[in-house]
Amino acid sequence: MCELLGMSANVPTDICFSFTGLIKRGGDTGPHKDGWGITFYEGKGCRTFKDPDASHCSPVAGFLRDYPIKSCAVVSHIRQANRGKVGLENTHPFTRELWGRNWTFAHNGQLSGYQALATGTSIPVGQTDSERAFCHLLHRIRTRFPEGPPAKPQTFWRFVAKVAEELKALGVFNMLLTDGRYLMAYCSTKLQWLTRRAPFGAAKLIDEDMEVDFGALTTPDDVVTVIATTPLTEGEPWAAMAPGQYVVFRLGEVYLKG
Amino acid sequence: MCELLGMSANVPTDICFSFTGLIKRGGDTGPHKDGWGITFYEGKGCRTFKDPDASHCSPVAGFLRDYPIKSCAVVSHIRQANRGKVGLENTHPFTRELWGRNWTFAHNGQLSGYQALATGTSIPVGQTDSERAFCHLLHRIRTRFPEGPPAKPQTFWRFVAKVAEELKALGVFNMLLTDGRYLMAYCSTKLQWLTRRAPFGAAKLIDEDMEVDFGALTTPDDVVTVIATTPLTEGEPWAAMAPGQYVVFRLGEVYLKG
Repeated sequence: MCELLGMSANVPTDICFSFTGLIKRGGDTGPHKDGWGITFYEGKGCRTFKDPDASHCSPVAGFLRDYPIKSCAVVSHIRQANRGKVGLENTHPFTRELWGRNWTFAHNGQLSGYQALATGTSIPVGQTDSERAFCHLLHRIRTRFPEGPPAKPQTFWRFVAKVAEELKALGVFNMLLTDGRYLMAYCSTKLQWLTRRAPFGAAKLIDEDMEVDFGALTTPDDVVTVIATTPLTEGEPWAAMAPGQYVVFRLGEVYLKG
Repeated sequence: MCELLGMSANVPTDICFSFTGLIKRGGDTGPHKDGWGITFYEGKGCRTFKDPDASHCSPVAGFLRDYPIKSCAVVSHIRQANRGKVGLENTHPFTRELWGRNWTFAHNGQLSGYQALATGTSIPVGQTDSERAFCHLLHRIRTRFPEGPPAKPQTFWRFVAKVAEELKALGVFNMLLTDGRYLMAYCSTKLQWLTRRAPFGAAKLIDEDMEVDFGALTTPDDVVTVIATTPLTEGEPWAAMAPGQYVVFRLGEVYLKG
Protein backbone atom coordinates (compact mmCIF):
# COMPACT_ATOMS: atom_id res chain seq x y z
CA MET A 1 0.00 0.00 0.00
CA CYS A 2 0.97 3.62 -0.26
CA GLU A 3 0.17 7.04 1.10
CA LEU A 4 -1.34 10.03 -0.62
CA LEU A 5 -1.00 13.76 -0.03
CA GLY A 6 -2.82 16.52 -1.88
CA MET A 7 -3.30 20.25 -1.57
CA SER A 8 -5.77 22.72 -3.04
CA ALA A 9 -5.38 26.43 -2.21
CA ASN A 10 -6.66 29.81 -3.31
CA VAL A 11 -3.20 31.40 -3.22
CA PRO A 12 0.10 29.81 -4.23
CA THR A 13 1.17 28.01 -1.05
CA ASP A 14 4.13 25.81 -0.25
CA ILE A 15 3.59 22.31 1.07
CA CYS A 16 6.97 21.91 2.83
CA PHE A 17 5.41 21.31 6.26
CA SER A 18 3.04 18.52 5.17
CA PHE A 19 5.66 17.04 2.84
CA THR A 20 8.13 16.87 5.74
CA GLY A 21 5.63 14.70 7.63
CA LEU A 22 4.82 12.54 4.62
CA ILE A 23 8.37 11.70 3.61
CA LYS A 24 9.19 10.44 7.10
CA ARG A 25 6.66 7.68 6.40
CA GLY A 26 8.69 6.70 3.34
CA GLY A 27 10.89 4.15 5.07
CA ASP A 28 11.21 5.71 8.55
CA THR A 29 7.95 6.17 10.53
CA GLY A 30 6.14 4.20 7.78
CA PRO A 31 7.04 1.31 5.43
CA HIS A 32 6.54 3.14 2.11
CA LYS A 33 10.13 2.90 0.93
CA ASP A 34 9.67 2.06 -2.76
CA GLY A 35 9.70 5.49 -4.30
CA TRP A 36 7.93 8.78 -3.98
CA GLY A 37 6.82 11.68 -6.15
CA ILE A 38 5.25 15.10 -5.98
CA THR A 39 3.63 17.25 -8.69
CA PHE A 40 3.28 21.03 -8.40
CA TYR A 41 1.06 23.07 -10.69
CA GLU A 42 1.94 26.60 -11.68
CA GLY A 43 -0.84 27.82 -13.98
CA LYS A 44 -1.40 25.27 -16.75
CA GLY A 45 2.11 23.96 -16.36
CA CYS A 46 3.25 21.47 -13.80
CA ARG A 47 6.47 19.81 -12.69
CA THR A 48 7.02 16.51 -10.97
CA PHE A 49 9.90 15.48 -8.76
CA LYS A 50 10.17 11.73 -8.30
CA ASP A 51 12.62 9.14 -7.10
CA PRO A 52 12.46 5.33 -6.97
CA ASP A 53 14.31 5.43 -3.63
CA ALA A 54 12.89 5.79 -0.12
CA SER A 55 11.75 9.34 0.56
CA HIS A 56 13.05 9.58 4.11
CA CYS A 57 16.65 9.38 2.85
CA SER A 58 16.23 10.75 -0.71
CA PRO A 59 18.45 13.76 -1.44
CA VAL A 60 15.81 15.10 -3.86
CA ALA A 61 13.11 14.85 -1.16
CA GLY A 62 15.48 16.50 1.30
CA PHE A 63 16.02 19.35 -1.15
CA LEU A 64 12.25 19.85 -1.60
CA ARG A 65 11.59 19.75 2.14
CA ASP A 66 13.64 22.93 2.43
CA TYR A 67 12.80 24.56 -0.90
CA PRO A 68 9.35 26.16 -0.90
CA ILE A 69 7.62 25.79 -4.29
CA LYS A 70 4.34 27.72 -4.16
CA SER A 71 1.38 26.15 -5.91
CA CYS A 72 -2.44 26.08 -5.82
CA ALA A 73 -2.63 22.35 -6.58
CA VAL A 74 -0.27 19.60 -5.45
CA VAL A 75 -0.42 15.79 -5.55
CA SER A 76 2.13 13.60 -3.80
CA HIS A 77 2.57 9.88 -3.19
CA ILE A 78 4.92 7.54 -1.34
CA ARG A 79 4.98 3.96 -2.52
CA GLN A 80 5.12 0.53 -1.02
CA ALA A 81 5.28 -1.67 -4.10
CA ASN A 82 2.77 -4.42 -4.68
CA ARG A 83 1.88 -4.45 -8.42
CA GLY A 84 4.93 -3.65 -10.54
CA LYS A 85 8.63 -3.61 -9.62
CA VAL A 86 10.40 -0.70 -7.97
CA GLY A 87 11.39 1.72 -10.72
CA LEU A 88 10.81 5.18 -12.07
CA GLU A 89 8.14 4.03 -14.54
CA ASN A 90 6.08 2.71 -11.62
CA THR A 91 6.51 5.76 -9.40
CA HIS A 92 3.47 8.04 -8.88
CA PRO A 93 2.15 10.63 -9.61
CA PHE A 94 1.44 9.98 -13.28
CA THR A 95 0.74 12.95 -15.56
CA ARG A 96 -0.87 12.85 -19.00
CA GLU A 97 -2.41 15.41 -21.30
CA LEU A 98 -6.12 15.54 -22.04
CA TRP A 99 -7.96 18.41 -23.77
CA GLY A 100 -4.82 20.55 -23.65
CA ARG A 101 -4.36 20.31 -19.88
CA ASN A 102 -2.03 18.24 -17.70
CA TRP A 103 -3.89 15.68 -15.58
CA THR A 104 -2.11 14.21 -12.59
CA PHE A 105 -3.13 11.01 -10.81
CA ALA A 106 -1.98 9.11 -7.74
CA HIS A 107 -3.48 5.96 -6.24
CA ASN A 108 -3.35 4.12 -2.96
CA GLY A 109 -4.61 0.56 -2.95
CA GLN A 110 -4.47 -2.62 -4.92
CA LEU A 111 -6.72 -3.81 -7.75
CA SER A 112 -7.50 -7.29 -9.08
CA GLY A 113 -8.25 -8.04 -12.70
CA TYR A 114 -6.82 -4.68 -13.73
CA GLN A 115 -5.07 -6.17 -16.78
CA ALA A 116 -8.48 -6.39 -18.47
CA LEU A 117 -9.17 -2.63 -18.17
CA ALA A 118 -9.41 -1.05 -21.63
CA THR A 119 -7.09 1.92 -22.13
CA GLY A 120 -7.65 2.95 -25.78
CA THR A 121 -4.84 5.16 -27.04
CA SER A 122 -3.48 5.84 -23.50
CA ILE A 123 -1.04 2.99 -23.09
CA PRO A 124 0.64 2.35 -19.72
CA VAL A 125 4.44 2.74 -19.63
CA GLY A 126 4.97 0.78 -16.39
CA GLN A 127 3.39 -2.30 -14.87
CA THR A 128 1.28 -0.94 -12.01
CA ASP A 129 -2.45 -1.41 -11.53
CA SER A 130 -2.48 2.34 -10.74
CA GLU A 131 -1.16 3.58 -14.07
CA ARG A 132 -3.46 1.18 -15.91
CA ALA A 133 -6.44 2.49 -13.91
CA PHE A 134 -5.43 6.06 -14.83
CA CYS A 135 -5.15 5.15 -18.53
CA HIS A 136 -8.55 3.43 -18.28
CA LEU A 137 -10.07 6.52 -16.69
CA LEU A 138 -8.69 8.77 -19.46
CA HIS A 139 -10.01 6.33 -22.07
CA ARG A 140 -13.46 6.35 -20.46
CA ILE A 141 -13.47 10.16 -20.31
CA ARG A 142 -12.49 10.45 -23.97
CA THR A 143 -15.18 7.94 -24.93
CA ARG A 144 -17.89 9.62 -22.84
CA PHE A 145 -16.99 13.18 -23.89
CA PRO A 146 -15.61 12.82 -27.44
CA GLU A 147 -16.19 16.52 -28.20
CA GLY A 148 -14.20 17.76 -25.21
CA PRO A 149 -15.13 18.80 -21.68
CA PRO A 150 -18.86 19.14 -20.97
CA ALA A 151 -20.26 22.64 -20.31
CA LYS A 152 -20.79 21.93 -16.62
CA PRO A 153 -17.74 20.77 -14.64
CA GLN A 154 -20.13 18.94 -12.28
CA THR A 155 -21.15 16.64 -15.15
CA PHE A 156 -17.51 15.80 -15.72
CA TRP A 157 -16.63 15.13 -12.08
CA ARG A 158 -19.74 13.01 -11.49
CA PHE A 159 -18.66 10.83 -14.40
CA VAL A 160 -15.13 10.50 -12.97
CA ALA A 161 -16.69 9.47 -9.63
CA LYS A 162 -18.77 6.84 -11.44
CA VAL A 163 -15.66 5.30 -13.05
CA ALA A 164 -13.85 5.48 -9.68
CA GLU A 165 -16.78 3.59 -8.14
CA GLU A 166 -16.31 0.85 -10.75
CA LEU A 167 -12.56 0.69 -10.05
CA LYS A 168 -13.25 0.46 -6.32
CA ALA A 169 -15.17 -2.75 -7.08
CA LEU A 170 -11.82 -4.27 -8.20
CA GLY A 171 -10.16 -3.76 -4.81
CA VAL A 172 -8.91 -0.71 -2.93
CA PHE A 173 -8.98 2.56 -4.84
CA ASN A 174 -8.17 5.73 -2.94
CA MET A 175 -7.34 8.34 -5.57
CA LEU A 176 -6.24 11.93 -6.10
CA LEU A 177 -6.78 13.50 -9.52
CA THR A 178 -6.17 17.10 -10.58
CA ASP A 179 -5.91 19.25 -13.67
CA GLY A 180 -4.41 22.10 -11.65
CA ARG A 181 -7.78 23.83 -11.12
CA TYR A 182 -9.92 21.11 -9.57
CA LEU A 183 -8.62 18.37 -7.29
CA MET A 184 -10.70 15.27 -6.63
CA ALA A 185 -10.21 13.03 -3.61
CA TYR A 186 -11.98 9.69 -4.00
CA CYS A 187 -12.13 7.45 -0.93
CA SER A 188 -12.25 3.69 -1.12
CA THR A 189 -10.98 2.85 2.38
CA LYS A 190 -9.16 5.81 3.91
CA LEU A 191 -8.59 9.44 3.10
CA GLN A 192 -8.90 12.49 5.33
CA TRP A 193 -8.89 16.22 4.71
CA LEU A 194 -8.54 19.47 6.54
CA THR A 195 -9.16 23.08 5.52
CA ARG A 196 -7.05 25.78 7.13
CA ARG A 197 -8.47 29.32 7.06
CA ALA A 198 -8.51 32.41 9.29
CA PRO A 199 -8.13 32.53 12.21
CA PHE A 200 -5.02 30.40 11.59
CA GLY A 201 -3.41 28.57 14.47
CA ALA A 202 -0.39 26.40 15.04
CA ALA A 203 -0.03 22.78 13.99
CA LYS A 204 2.35 20.01 15.02
CA LEU A 205 3.43 17.13 12.81
CA ILE A 206 2.79 13.58 14.02
CA ASP A 207 5.77 12.02 12.22
CA GLU A 208 8.41 14.62 12.97
CA ASP A 209 9.14 16.99 15.82
CA MET A 210 8.05 20.10 13.95
CA GLU A 211 5.50 22.80 14.64
CA VAL A 212 4.33 25.67 12.46
CA ASP A 213 2.34 28.79 13.28
CA PHE A 214 0.27 29.33 10.14
CA GLY A 215 -0.87 32.71 11.46
CA ALA A 216 2.62 34.06 10.78
CA LEU A 217 2.73 32.67 7.22
CA THR A 218 -0.71 33.51 5.84
CA THR A 219 -3.08 36.36 5.07
CA PRO A 220 -6.68 36.42 6.38
CA ASP A 221 -8.07 35.46 2.95
CA ASP A 222 -5.99 32.29 2.48
CA VAL A 223 -7.86 29.00 2.20
CA VAL A 224 -5.72 25.87 2.07
CA THR A 225 -7.04 22.32 2.05
CA VAL A 226 -4.75 19.36 2.67
CA ILE A 227 -5.78 15.77 1.92
CA ALA A 228 -3.88 12.77 3.28
CA THR A 229 -4.27 9.04 3.82
CA THR A 230 -4.14 9.60 7.58
CA PRO A 231 -3.79 12.88 9.51
CA LEU A 232 -0.36 14.47 9.33
CA THR A 233 -0.88 16.77 12.31
CA GLU A 234 -2.11 16.60 15.89
CA GLY A 235 -4.92 18.74 17.27
CA GLU A 236 -6.47 19.81 13.98
CA PRO A 237 -10.00 18.79 12.85
CA TRP A 238 -9.21 16.29 10.08
CA ALA A 239 -12.39 14.97 8.43
CA ALA A 240 -12.40 11.27 7.60
CA MET A 241 -14.06 10.36 4.32
CA ALA A 242 -16.37 7.36 4.08
CA PRO A 243 -15.84 4.54 1.58
CA GLY A 244 -17.35 5.52 -1.78
CA GLN A 245 -17.35 9.22 -0.91
CA TYR A 246 -15.64 11.88 -3.00
CA VAL A 247 -14.88 15.56 -2.68
CA VAL A 248 -13.80 17.87 -5.50
CA PHE A 249 -11.90 20.91 -4.28
CA ARG A 250 -11.32 24.17 -6.11
CA LEU A 251 -9.12 26.95 -4.75
CA GLY A 252 -9.17 25.24 -1.35
CA GLU A 253 -12.96 25.12 -1.05
CA VAL A 254 -15.32 22.18 -1.50
CA TYR A 255 -16.68 22.46 -5.04
CA LEU A 256 -18.65 19.21 -5.24
CA LYS A 257 -19.31 16.30 -2.89
CA GLY A 258 -20.86 12.91 -3.39
CA MET B 1 16.57 31.17 -29.24
CA CYS B 2 17.62 28.42 -26.90
CA GLU B 3 20.32 25.84 -26.31
CA LEU B 4 20.10 22.08 -26.39
CA LEU B 5 22.04 19.37 -24.60
CA GLY B 6 21.65 15.63 -25.05
CA MET B 7 23.45 12.48 -23.98
CA SER B 8 23.38 8.87 -25.17
CA ALA B 9 25.53 6.31 -23.34
CA ASN B 10 26.00 2.55 -23.08
CA VAL B 11 26.27 2.64 -19.27
CA PRO B 12 24.34 4.86 -16.86
CA THR B 13 26.41 8.03 -16.79
CA ASP B 14 25.93 11.31 -15.02
CA ILE B 15 25.83 14.53 -17.00
CA CYS B 16 26.87 16.90 -14.16
CA PHE B 17 29.95 18.15 -16.00
CA SER B 18 28.15 19.11 -19.24
CA PHE B 19 25.13 20.41 -17.33
CA THR B 20 27.41 22.69 -15.31
CA GLY B 21 28.59 24.27 -18.56
CA LEU B 22 25.10 24.52 -20.02
CA ILE B 23 23.41 26.20 -17.07
CA LYS B 24 26.02 28.98 -17.01
CA ARG B 25 24.61 29.98 -20.41
CA GLY B 26 21.19 30.35 -18.78
CA GLY B 27 21.52 34.03 -17.93
CA ASP B 28 25.25 34.25 -17.17
CA THR B 29 27.62 33.41 -20.06
CA GLY B 30 24.56 33.23 -22.36
CA PRO B 31 21.19 35.01 -22.61
CA HIS B 32 18.93 31.95 -22.13
CA LYS B 33 17.31 33.09 -18.90
CA ASP B 34 13.67 32.10 -19.48
CA GLY B 35 13.60 28.65 -17.97
CA TRP B 36 15.42 25.37 -18.28
CA GLY B 37 14.70 21.66 -17.99
CA ILE B 38 16.38 18.27 -18.04
CA THR B 39 14.94 14.78 -18.51
CA PHE B 40 16.73 11.64 -17.32
CA TYR B 41 15.68 8.15 -18.40
CA GLU B 42 16.07 5.18 -16.10
CA GLY B 43 14.77 2.17 -18.04
CA LYS B 44 11.32 2.92 -19.44
CA GLY B 45 10.76 5.53 -16.76
CA CYS B 46 11.96 9.09 -16.88
CA ARG B 47 11.94 12.16 -14.70
CA THR B 48 12.15 15.79 -15.60
CA PHE B 49 13.42 18.67 -13.51
CA LYS B 50 12.34 22.05 -14.80
CA ASP B 51 12.13 25.62 -13.69
CA PRO B 52 10.78 28.76 -15.38
CA ASP B 53 13.65 30.77 -13.82
CA ALA B 54 17.15 31.34 -15.17
CA SER B 55 19.30 28.23 -14.78
CA HIS B 56 22.49 29.98 -13.70
CA CYS B 57 20.83 31.05 -10.43
CA SER B 58 18.15 28.31 -10.07
CA PRO B 59 18.40 26.38 -6.78
CA VAL B 60 17.03 23.26 -8.54
CA ALA B 61 19.72 23.51 -11.22
CA GLY B 62 22.32 24.07 -8.51
CA PHE B 63 21.15 20.92 -6.75
CA LEU B 64 21.38 18.85 -9.97
CA ARG B 65 24.84 20.20 -10.81
CA ASP B 66 26.09 18.50 -7.66
CA TYR B 67 23.78 15.46 -7.57
CA PRO B 68 24.83 12.79 -10.07
CA ILE B 69 21.80 11.05 -11.63
CA LYS B 70 23.05 8.25 -13.84
CA SER B 71 21.22 7.68 -17.10
CA CYS B 72 21.74 6.28 -20.62
CA ALA B 73 19.61 8.97 -22.27
CA VAL B 74 19.28 12.63 -21.29
CA VAL B 75 17.73 15.67 -22.96
CA SER B 76 18.16 19.19 -21.62
CA HIS B 77 17.21 22.69 -22.75
CA ILE B 78 17.69 26.27 -21.66
CA ARG B 79 15.22 28.78 -22.99
CA GLN B 80 15.23 32.28 -24.34
CA ALA B 81 11.54 32.91 -24.92
CA ASN B 82 10.25 33.98 -28.29
CA ARG B 83 6.95 32.16 -28.91
CA GLY B 84 4.93 31.80 -25.70
CA LYS B 85 5.35 33.58 -22.37
CA VAL B 86 7.77 32.53 -19.64
CA GLY B 87 6.06 29.80 -17.62
CA LEU B 88 6.26 26.16 -16.69
CA GLU B 89 3.88 25.08 -19.45
CA ASN B 90 6.28 26.56 -22.02
CA THR B 91 9.45 25.11 -20.51
CA HIS B 92 11.17 22.25 -22.38
CA PRO B 93 11.69 19.31 -22.51
CA PHE B 94 8.18 18.08 -23.23
CA THR B 95 7.34 14.43 -22.55
CA ARG B 96 4.35 12.49 -23.88
CA GLU B 97 3.44 8.83 -24.11
CA LEU B 98 3.27 6.99 -27.42
CA TRP B 99 3.04 3.22 -27.82
CA GLY B 100 3.61 2.70 -24.11
CA ARG B 101 6.87 4.62 -23.98
CA ASN B 102 7.80 8.11 -22.80
CA TRP B 103 8.96 10.35 -25.66
CA THR B 104 10.90 13.47 -24.79
CA PHE B 105 11.39 16.42 -27.11
CA ALA B 106 13.31 19.70 -26.99
CA HIS B 107 13.63 22.32 -29.71
CA ASN B 108 15.91 25.22 -30.51
CA GLY B 109 14.66 27.69 -33.09
CA GLN B 110 11.61 29.57 -34.16
CA LEU B 111 8.85 28.53 -36.56
CA SER B 112 6.37 30.57 -38.60
CA GLY B 113 2.84 29.44 -39.39
CA TYR B 114 3.05 26.78 -36.68
CA GLN B 115 -0.54 27.46 -35.52
CA ALA B 116 -1.74 25.64 -38.65
CA LEU B 117 0.09 22.39 -37.78
CA ALA B 118 -2.42 19.57 -37.18
CA THR B 119 -2.01 17.81 -33.84
CA GLY B 120 -4.86 15.27 -33.74
CA THR B 121 -5.48 14.03 -30.21
CA SER B 122 -2.17 15.44 -28.87
CA ILE B 123 -3.21 18.92 -27.82
CA PRO B 124 -0.59 21.46 -26.72
CA VAL B 125 -0.82 22.66 -23.11
CA GLY B 126 1.32 25.78 -23.57
CA GLN B 127 1.68 28.34 -26.34
CA THR B 128 5.09 27.55 -27.86
CA ASP B 129 5.80 26.70 -31.47
CA SER B 130 7.98 23.90 -30.03
CA GLU B 131 5.26 22.01 -28.15
CA ARG B 132 2.94 22.37 -31.10
CA ALA B 133 5.63 20.93 -33.41
CA PHE B 134 6.07 18.01 -30.99
CA CYS B 135 2.30 17.36 -30.93
CA HIS B 136 2.27 17.56 -34.73
CA LEU B 137 5.13 15.06 -34.94
CA LEU B 138 3.30 12.61 -32.64
CA HIS B 139 0.13 13.05 -34.70
CA ARG B 140 2.03 12.35 -37.92
CA ILE B 141 3.67 9.27 -36.39
CA ARG B 142 0.29 7.92 -35.21
CA THR B 143 -1.23 8.55 -38.62
CA ARG B 144 1.67 6.95 -40.52
CA PHE B 145 1.98 3.92 -38.20
CA PRO B 146 -1.57 3.32 -36.90
CA GLU B 147 -0.73 -0.25 -35.90
CA GLY B 148 2.23 0.73 -33.71
CA PRO B 149 5.96 0.90 -34.33
CA PRO B 150 7.21 -0.54 -37.63
CA ALA B 151 9.34 -3.72 -37.52
CA LYS B 152 12.51 -1.84 -38.48
CA PRO B 153 13.47 1.13 -36.26
CA GLN B 154 15.21 2.65 -39.31
CA THR B 155 11.82 2.99 -41.03
CA PHE B 156 10.53 4.87 -38.01
CA TRP B 157 13.47 7.25 -37.68
CA ARG B 158 13.58 8.02 -41.42
CA PHE B 159 9.94 9.06 -41.16
CA VAL B 160 10.69 11.30 -38.16
CA ALA B 161 13.52 12.91 -40.16
CA LYS B 162 11.10 13.52 -43.03
CA VAL B 163 8.65 15.36 -40.74
CA ALA B 164 11.57 17.29 -39.18
CA GLU B 165 12.60 18.34 -42.70
CA GLU B 166 9.10 19.73 -43.26
CA LEU B 167 9.20 21.60 -39.94
CA LYS B 168 12.60 23.03 -40.86
CA ALA B 169 10.90 24.63 -43.86
CA LEU B 170 8.87 26.75 -41.37
CA GLY B 171 11.94 28.34 -39.78
CA VAL B 172 14.71 27.08 -37.53
CA PHE B 173 14.25 23.57 -36.18
CA ASN B 174 17.11 22.03 -34.24
CA MET B 175 15.65 19.12 -32.29
CA LEU B 176 16.44 16.39 -29.81
CA LEU B 177 13.98 13.48 -29.50
CA THR B 178 14.35 10.31 -27.44
CA ASP B 179 12.33 7.38 -26.15
CA GLY B 180 15.12 6.42 -23.73
CA ARG B 181 16.67 3.90 -26.14
CA TYR B 182 17.28 5.96 -29.26
CA LEU B 183 18.14 9.64 -29.31
CA MET B 184 17.78 11.66 -32.50
CA ALA B 185 19.61 14.92 -33.12
CA TYR B 186 18.17 16.84 -36.06
CA CYS B 187 20.11 19.87 -37.26
CA SER B 188 18.50 22.86 -38.89
CA THR B 189 21.19 25.47 -38.25
CA LYS B 190 23.54 24.37 -35.47
CA LEU B 191 24.14 21.25 -33.43
CA GLN B 192 27.42 19.51 -32.59
CA TRP B 193 28.29 16.17 -31.05
CA LEU B 194 31.20 14.37 -29.52
CA THR B 195 31.74 10.73 -28.55
CA ARG B 196 33.99 9.97 -25.60
CA ARG B 197 35.48 6.47 -25.45
CA ALA B 198 38.74 4.79 -24.36
CA PRO B 199 41.40 6.04 -24.10
CA PHE B 200 39.64 8.76 -22.10
CA GLY B 201 41.35 12.07 -21.51
CA ALA B 202 40.67 15.26 -19.68
CA ALA B 203 38.25 17.98 -20.76
CA LYS B 204 37.83 21.60 -19.78
CA LEU B 205 34.55 23.51 -19.87
CA ILE B 206 34.34 26.69 -21.94
CA ASP B 207 31.71 28.41 -19.75
CA GLU B 208 33.09 27.61 -16.33
CA ASP B 209 36.54 27.07 -14.84
CA MET B 210 36.18 23.33 -14.46
CA GLU B 211 38.17 20.38 -15.74
CA VAL B 212 37.43 16.67 -15.54
CA ASP B 213 39.65 13.64 -16.13
CA PHE B 214 37.25 11.13 -17.62
CA GLY B 215 39.91 8.41 -17.35
CA ALA B 216 39.39 8.38 -13.60
CA LEU B 217 35.60 8.13 -13.88
CA THR B 218 35.07 5.54 -16.61
CA THR B 219 35.76 1.93 -17.58
CA PRO B 220 37.42 1.02 -20.92
CA ASP B 221 34.07 -0.13 -22.39
CA ASP B 222 32.16 3.11 -21.75
CA VAL B 223 30.86 4.99 -24.77
CA VAL B 224 29.26 8.37 -24.10
CA THR B 225 28.02 10.79 -26.73
CA VAL B 226 27.16 14.37 -25.89
CA ILE B 227 25.18 16.63 -28.25
CA ALA B 228 25.03 20.40 -27.80
CA THR B 229 24.13 23.55 -29.69
CA THR B 230 27.75 24.68 -29.53
CA PRO B 231 30.75 22.87 -28.00
CA LEU B 232 30.78 22.82 -24.21
CA THR B 233 34.48 21.93 -23.89
CA GLU B 234 37.82 23.04 -25.27
CA GLY B 235 40.26 20.73 -27.03
CA GLU B 236 37.87 17.90 -27.87
CA PRO B 237 36.87 16.92 -31.43
CA TRP B 238 33.25 18.16 -31.58
CA ALA B 239 31.61 17.35 -34.92
CA ALA B 240 29.42 20.07 -36.41
CA MET B 241 26.29 18.83 -38.13
CA ALA B 242 25.18 20.32 -41.44
CA PRO B 243 21.72 21.85 -41.96
CA GLY B 244 19.22 19.11 -42.76
CA GLN B 245 21.47 16.39 -41.30
CA TYR B 246 20.37 14.01 -38.58
CA VAL B 247 22.03 11.39 -36.39
CA VAL B 248 20.21 8.75 -34.34
CA PHE B 249 22.29 7.48 -31.42
CA ARG B 250 21.79 4.27 -29.49
CA LEU B 251 23.86 3.40 -26.41
CA GLY B 252 26.30 6.16 -27.31
CA GLU B 253 26.99 4.89 -30.85
CA VAL B 254 25.73 6.22 -34.17
CA TYR B 255 22.78 4.03 -35.12
CA LEU B 256 21.57 5.85 -38.22
CA LYS B 257 22.66 8.96 -40.13
CA GLY B 258 21.08 10.95 -42.89
